[in-house]
Amino acid sequence: MQARIGDLAALLGGELIGDPEHTVVRLGTLERAEADTVSFLSNPRYQAQLATTRAGCVIVSAAMREAAAARVAAIVVADPYLAYARLSQWWAARLRERPAAGIHPSAVVEEGAIVAPGASIGALAFVGAGAVVEAGAIVSAQAHVGEGAFVGEGTVLKPRAMLAFGCRIGARGIVHGGAVIGADGFGFAPEAGRWTKIEQLGAVRLGDDVEIGANTCIDRGALDDTVVDDGVKIDNLVQIAHNVRIGAHTAFAGCSAVAGSTRIGRHCTIGGAANIVGHLEICDGVHISAATLVTASIRKPGHYTGVFPCDDHASWEKNAATLKNLHSLRERLRALEKKTS
Amino acid sequence: MQARIGDLAALLGGELIGDPEHTVVRLGTLERAEADTVSFLSNPRYQAQLATTRAGCVIVSAAMREAAAARVAAIVVADPYLAYARLSQWWAARLRERPAAGIHPSAVVEEGAIVAPGASIGALAFVGAGAVVEAGAIVSAQAHVGEGAFVGEGTVLKPRAMLAFGCRIGARGIVHGGAVIGADGFGFAPEAGRWTKIEQLGAVRLGDDVEIGANTCIDRGALDDTVVDDGVKIDNLVQIAHNVRIGAHTAFAGCSAVAGSTRIGRHCTIGGAANIVGHLEICDGVHISAATLVTASIRKPGHYTGVFPCDDHASWEKNAATLKNLHSLRERLRALEKKTS
Amino acid sequence: MQARIGDLAALLGGELIGDPEHTVVRLGTLERAEADTVSFLSNPRYQAQLATTRAGCVIVSAAMREAAAARVAAIVVADPYLAYARLSQWWAARLRERPAAGIHPSAVVEEGAIVAPGASIGALAFVGAGAVVEAGAIVSAQAHVGEGAFVGEGTVLKPRAMLAFGCRIGARGIVHGGAVIGADGFGFAPEAGRWTKIEQLGAVRLGDDVEIGANTCIDRGALDDTVVDDGVKIDNLVQIAHNVRIGAHTAFAGCSAVAGSTRIGRHCTIGGAANIVGHLEICDGVHISAATLVTASIRKPGHYTGVFPCDDHASWEKNAATLKNLHSLRERLRALEKKTS
Repeated sequence: MQARIGDLAALLGGELIGDPEHTVVRLGTLERAEADTVSFLSNPRYQAQLATTRAGCVIVSAAMREAAAARVAAIVVADPYLAYARLSQWWAARLRERPAAGIHPSAVVEEGAIVAPGASIGALAFVGAGAVVEAGAIVSAQAHVGEGAFVGEGTVLKPRAMLAFGCRIGARGIVHGGAVIGADGFGFAPEAGRWTKIEQLGAVRLGDDVEIGANTCIDRGALDDTVVDDGVKIDNLVQIAHNVRIGAHTAFAGCSAVAGSTRIGRHCTIGGAANIVGHLEICDGVHISAATLVTASIRKPGHYTGVFPCDDHASWEKNAATLKNLHSLRERLRALEKKTS
Repeated sequence: MQARIGDLAALLGGELIGDPEHTVVRLGTLERAEADTVSFLSNPRYQAQLATTRAGCVIVSAAMREAAAARVAAIVVADPYLAYARLSQWWAARLRERPAAGIHPSAVVEEGAIVAPGASIGALAFVGAGAVVEAGAIVSAQAHVGEGAFVGEGTVLKPRAMLAFGCRIGARGIVHGGAVIGADGFGFAPEAGRWTKIEQLGAVRLGDDVEIGANTCIDRGALDDTVVDDGVKIDNLVQIAHNVRIGAHTAFAGCSAVAGSTRIGRHCTIGGAANIVGHLEICDGVHISAATLVTASIRKPGHYTGVFPCDDHASWEKNAATLKNLHSLRERLRALEKKTS
Repeated sequence: MQARIGDLAALLGGELIGDPEHTVVRLGTLERAEADTVSFLSNPRYQAQLATTRAGCVIVSAAMREAAAARVAAIVVADPYLAYARLSQWWAARLRERPAAGIHPSAVVEEGAIVAPGASIGALAFVGAGAVVEAGAIVSAQAHVGEGAFVGEGTVLKPRAMLAFGCRIGARGIVHGGAVIGADGFGFAPEAGRWTKIEQLGAVRLGDDVEIGANTCIDRGALDDTVVDDGVKIDNLVQIAHNVRIGAHTAFAGCSAVAGSTRIGRHCTIGGAANIVGHLEICDGVHISAATLVTASIRKPGHYTGVFPCDDHASWEKNAATLKNLHSLRERLRALEKKTS
């Protein structure tokens, strides 16, 4: 596959500096680019690489115009990172073949399931009775669509992804391998030292343009549904417990988790391995740092953190030991203050 | 499906206040209930909703009798949460069809496996040679029962659950999708800068009434088995390492983990994302808070915590910076105390 | 299966003290051993068990020679733990049957895939077009090898393991159930409050002798590949993000995670539930404690930690409350120092 950089500039709505006939065959990083590579600069951290890259064409912002033009062909755009995203989509669409429409002979599609024309059901996939797979949707090899589940138009369940019975995902979504949408929420009533199961009668509803990472779990609701709004992006190994509601365009990094019945607003970002306990309200526009535990509702947009700083082990050990007596340290300080006042 | 509230009161052994002929068609939350809904109040956090709910019938404790009776029909029970659990089971049994007994034609059941009459082996499921699936057990679509594994009476492996070769689960258990019971424990001997694998010769033994969450892992033992006793409930994405032993009726919330050879007592609760290092003993009746790391054995029942409190990022940053010098702060305080004594 | 201890001593290159004709039928722990068991002592924590074990033969170091010989037959070796590892391999090879070579009739192997003679493709497994499975490799039941993927000689994909399209694993590797190698990295460009997907055009390359735990995720690179070097061992439920590079013989304990583009050196160990943020450099020989968050590059080998110490809840609460004002505590101390100087 090859592309003229003049065509790429047109595609991205950018200004081309250089020969439009120059062709590239790859999209790559500045560091590893060759003359046949189109690359981009968005993270200032990598700016020094602009001077040394061998890339045949670099996508840059206006501020970088001169630095880029001095060396290689360039495409100047308002937002190079966004231009890179668009170009990656253009490239992927050309590099990767769409699976054929239709139902693979080894798949099991139960009676009463509706698979729209143009949808694709892969090898060894399962589609349960009463399920609906809309036009252009792809249920990949070994994926699972439970009884009565719904897969919206153009949504892709990657190999080994699972949408349990009665759950829904809207249009243009992606569910990666091993994700489990719709296992039971974790609910038990204590009864004389034992746990009595609370059957989870709700389901999971995912909006449009939602992406769910590999081996992520989103549990079905106890009574009402667990709800994930449009445009939410969830990374790998994330746990979303029952009855959680997540507002539109919020993103969860890998290994984060939200306990039951918590409501999270729109346009939030939850850092990797961050945890939010149950029954809280997190307003719109909240950003939680990696590995932070949130134990109280947050009603003001902003950036929140709670992490013990990493140190060499010996230093940590001394500080941690002192921390276990921090309260008495405060008392001693208070006593001194009194004494010297 | 509909139910007379008089019948529900009888089922729950509760006292009915109101018309026994009133019928309901759903079990729901106070907040979203309508006249055709039976609801319940157990968490005092939601008590205010009793005044505004439209529920046709509310299950309450004696203390709430008057507040409930003033408004809607009520069923008064000793423990409304437990009554809700029982009612959820009654409802689920009526709402959800049991899969048909027998072996789906697309399943692979190897020679020498024993599938009891009345057990169900779903589409594209695998049951290895020498495995036993007892009466009433369900191996759902795309689930996996390895060679020589054992699935007890009435136990359900949900779609895509996996019980590896030689592992056992007792009666009335549930294993959710993506759970891996019986992968190798993580054991290597260092040898000149490389890792030499220690083959894991043990297995996993799960007792009766055990529930295992989606994408949870329980590793097989190195020599002896990893053992999970009766009534243990484990949420999603939990890691139980090799040779761990977990006492009866202990519960693990999502994303928690226990490292190798640790023994945990009965009736413990391990909070979400909590971690317990290896080779420890945790006695009965221990409760670990979410996101806490346990690094020493615990020999006294109680509640244990270790979490950096979450704060706005700027405040956290200042406190964290000071924390890195906490030990020297203590030294300075000590010096001051000397000086002023 | 049984073994003469004289033969085991020869196998391990150790010195036998006792009757070479004595036979054992199991490899077991000191604690649970009987006369028919060969056991070992390596962890000094278990040394007291040497006096009470019923094991028919114990593998020990020279320092333990007399203690061992006084009681039972012994094999004296330089490194008992390594000897145990080797013996576990010897034992496993005899206990567990290799699956038959060839392609199970229920497997789906697409046209253009190359399965070497002697490789084994299990029941309900999928091998995509253009994939290569080398000699002696095992793709177990329900496992997945995507289009154009490569499985090296003798490598085992356990049941339900997944190697996505275009990804590679070298020779003698093991991928446990539920692991997802090659899902999309988590990359989006913000665009007017929404997330625009960055297609992940790279793949994952795993070296030789790599082991990947159950339900672990290793994401494909955005442009270049995500790379894991020879001899790396990764436990369960670990997240390795896109474009990470991991040096040879590094080990990750369960539930740990590395964010995008971080480079980790050789011979590192990452503790359970430890997290390393993105775009860092970690040099060779770094050891990170369990549950520690690493937020800056580490350029000096050593042991690093950052964990809030666990305490009884009431003590923690008092210390944590003080911690939220630690910075002002420092200011007060400073003021006092001034005052009394």
